[in-house]
Amino acid sequence: MNKAQTTLNIRGKIKMQKTVMIQEEILAAASRLIAERGFRAVTVDDISAEMGFTKSVIYYYLKNKNEILWRIFEKIDETYANGLDEALSLDADPTELLARVVKQHCLNVLLHRDWSTIYNRDENELAEDQQKIVDDNKRRYNRRVQELYAKGVKAGKFRDTPPVIAVSCIIGACNWPYVWFKPTGKLNANQIADSYAELLIKGVVI
Amino acid sequence: MNKAQTTLNIRGKIKMQKTVMIQEEILAAASRLIAERGFRAVTVDDISAEMGFTKSVIYYYLKNKNEILWRIFEKIDETYANGLDEALSLDADPTELLARVVKQHCLNVLLHRDWSTIYNRDENELAEDQQKIVDDNKRRYNRRVQELYAKGVKAGKFRDTPPVIAVSCIIGACNWPYVWFKPTGKLNANQIADSYAELLIKGVVI
Repeated sequence: MNKAQTTLNIRGKIKMQKTVMIQEEILAAASRLIAERGFRAVTVDDISAEMGFTKSVIYYYLKNKNEILWRIFEKIDETYANGLDEALSLDADPTELLARVVKQHCLNVLLHRDWSTIYNRDENELAEDQQKIVDDNKRRYNRRVQELYAKGVKAGKFRDTPPVIAVSCIIGACNWPYVWFKPTGKLNANQIADSYAELLIKGVVI
Repeated sequence: MNKAQTTLNIRGKIKMQKTVMIQEEILAAASRLIAERGFRAVTVDDISAEMGFTKSVIYYYLKNKNEILWRIFEKIDETYANGLDEALSLDADPTELLARVVKQHCLNVLLHRDWSTIYNRDENELAEDQQKIVDDNKRRYNRRVQELYAKGVKAGKFRDTPPVIAVSCIIGACNWPYVWFKPTGKLNANQIADSYAELLIKGVVI
């Protein structure tokens, strides 16, 4: 590669990084507004005003409002799937793995409440094929946790509850705090996630 | 009381019973429609059409759309508060009482999914003073369960987690199934409520 080619290559990379960074900023601003007001009430004008951009800048980076919502859903699914990968990456027994799964799920809910609001409320604003992908991702995520639960039952470690019920109870408990949690309140996200993991795995009774 | 007075009295009672019955039917139909379409999308015309009444019949029994929504919220709060009263009415230890609380809460969620949808989504459609009453009722309900939890901790029976966190975890787990539960599915409400009570109180690990 000659010097001119190297310079072009670096310029290309920087441009791509810039695109990704600006898209991320647009999605973050859009998430805040959509969570607060609902998908239909937010316009591309609102998003550009929130960022101090003109509307044409938004359209340069993302095709339309549907693409913005779809990219938010993709980002949520990716973040949760990566969290699950990381939780399950340790070579540990089912109890420790489940504690890690609960903790990462709780933290994702608590630290991204905008996402939870949008994910639980606005899925029906997506196109049908997009909804199908979201539902498939959700099923895949739950199935992986159910498989872990079944492994724990088989190993004689976990209560013999149908995995689909047990996992709905555990993940449901972790999903709920987006409704009430305030990061400015007395409880912090880490403390809640740790307590939930302990309570769900060991139970209330000592 | 003479015969004429007695007859009037009976007529009055029958009229009142009829009013209550029709109001209940209107609220049930309205709950179905509002849960499905959202409060703003439903008109009094839709509710009357759903019931085969004219709009004037609805207005005879309930003042307007706000009163319909408010009465639905009142009914939900009353049902949950009565369920809690009943669960706590037994002279039993905190573990058994908490199991009863979990079971009644779960069953209320599973058997009235329309209500859960409306309660969790449409509170901000109520007037401000109505929202305050709903929030106060919610706080009172949670506080009563937190007091039970604190009693269990004091008796050395329950894990020493701050009651506000423990109860948010337990009640949150019970609240979630309205998102996914289908009464036509393989799992029935009683089975789920029993499993949730066992899992939350005794934990996953055996």
